[in-house]
Amino acid sequence: MGKDIRAFWTEDLFSALRVTPGFTLAHVETGSTPGFNGRKKDSAAAGAEGAVILSHLQEMLFANSKCGDNRKVLLVLQAMDTAGKGGIVRHVVGAVDPQGISHFAFKAPTRAELRHDFLWRIRKRLPEAGMIGVFDRSHYEDVLIARVHELVPAAEIEKRYDLINKFEQELVDDDTTVIKVMLQISSAEQKSRLAERLDRPDKYWKYHTVDVDERARWSGYQEAYQVALERTSTAAAPWFVVPADRKWYARLAVQHLLTNALNSMVLSWPAAEFDIPAEKLRLAATT
Amino acid sequence: MGKDIRAFWTEDLFSALRVTPGFTLAHVETGSTPGFNGRKKDSAAAGAEGAVILSHLQEMLFANSKCGDNRKVLLVLQAMDTAGKGGIVRHVVGAVDPQGISHFAFKAPTRAELRHDFLWRIRKRLPEAGMIGVFDRSHYEDVLIARVHELVPAAEIEKRYDLINKFEQELVDDDTTVIKVMLQISSAEQKSRLAERLDRPDKYWKYHTVDVDERARWSGYQEAYQVALERTSTAAAPWFVVPADRKWYARLAVQHLLTNALNSMVLSWPAAEFDIPAEKLRLAATT
Repeated sequence: MGKDIRAFWTEDLFSALRVTPGFTLAHVETGSTPGFNGRKKDSAAAGAEGAVILSHLQEMLFANSKCGDNRKVLLVLQAMDTAGKGGIVRHVVGAVDPQGISHFAFKAPTRAELRHDFLWRIRKRLPEAGMIGVFDRSHYEDVLIARVHELVPAAEIEKRYDLINKFEQELVDDDTTVIKVMLQISSAEQKSRLAERLDRPDKYWKYHTVDVDERARWSGYQEAYQVALERTSTAAAPWFVVPADRKWYARLAVQHLLTNALNSMVLSWPAAEFDIPAEKLRLAATT
Repeated sequence: MGKDIRAFWTEDLFSALRVTPGFTLAHVETGSTPGFNGRKKDSAAAGAEGAVILSHLQEMLFANSKCGDNRKVLLVLQAMDTAGKGGIVRHVVGAVDPQGISHFAFKAPTRAELRHDFLWRIRKRLPEAGMIGVFDRSHYEDVLIARVHELVPAAEIEKRYDLINKFEQELVDDDTTVIKVMLQISSAEQKSRLAERLDRPDKYWKYHTVDVDERARWSGYQEAYQVALERTSTAAAPWFVVPADRKWYARLAVQHLLTNALNSMVLSWPAAEFDIPAEKLRLAATT
């Protein structure tokens, strides 16, 4: 396995990136690489080793669910446009067996969805036992875009933070390990990434004219994130803010957070639920 | 990109593996490697190159769906136990961006599902536009295990072949490219793979005592497959039988079939749906 993966990390990312009381989003250095003891050139090796470890843990999680274990993981990804959610899914989640992944990208709610409470459509996409669920956007949009665009009254937004905390506590009580990640980029980095989409024909499809309109609301979104992070980073379901101007770092950091979460579950291969010698004899007796 | 991928393949797999009139399952040499111009040692290189190509095509399929293209792919995987469906999902499907994959593993129908016609639960899992849907088992179980175990009257099974063909024609009419793959192993190979599961604590969870009971019905299943293949390999939704005693070959072959299917769609990057110079100016004007 080469260099021990732990050698790449100088500090506990869980502590380094977690949102705790007094956290200020504006103070996050978007180009920094907290805890990573290396440079971009080391990231491929660290990522490849991390993928093997993550994949192994994921398979044990999945295996246990086949033997009655109810545990599962939910990774929530939130970010400003272009911050790299897609890259996280592709490179970090993509390194894991698709059988163990339940991925869903939430779009603007449909008319039918809007007839229900905002968590209704979220509940339908929760991961089952043994799975790593990945939400690309989530119920947090209901306190982010909804707040910035004043889609609902302020008093309703206010209630939602508590409803979200209560909802996530339910998930935790149902044996879900909840990891919430916000990828934080600078406004300048977003500008450069949007410019790239306008320059590359293979990226046009990722560009939407509304993206430029939304840039005008940058500070509104930052404020909405600040409030959401403050109000909903709980011990049960903590938020992690990952500096994301360097894509390679953001991917490694999310991989590491996910790995930490699975490690904390103290997984092992489930014991045989059958009589091994007897089964060997039965099998040997078949033609 | 190194050696051209086409150099690895001596014949058109679509033709070599497709089930056409007169096909006899019992004649398939399960240890053979039709069309592959290489050995196991070449398979890693071929697979890695194939993954890059498949991934690129998948992204174009996905991109087009964001611009109104309704096309999608459905890969149906069927096989005897231990034949390697899981490995195909992990290694072939797993090389593609999880955002573009909609994977579902069908289990024995629930009581609720049994209250509906057999295609009801299948319809709920069909891939949306731009996606590669992967069915690990499928509606074919309703003419396989259902036939072997006589779960429904023979006359009902008889009707189902036609219902399946009609159903799959609907999918094709809705712009779905349907690829149906049966992985064919020998009974001896299955025995050896089951024995391995009994020998390795990390594989116990994949073993079920019923697997040995089912081995006693091997010829019944082979007969049920033969009939299903004959009756449902249509021009619209053909079956491919992939020799699967060599896992590395089966994975390459399915990767290649999937790639062929996407190639046939003649995909390209969608054109910009906005005024590029105007958007560049708007973006440049933002702070």
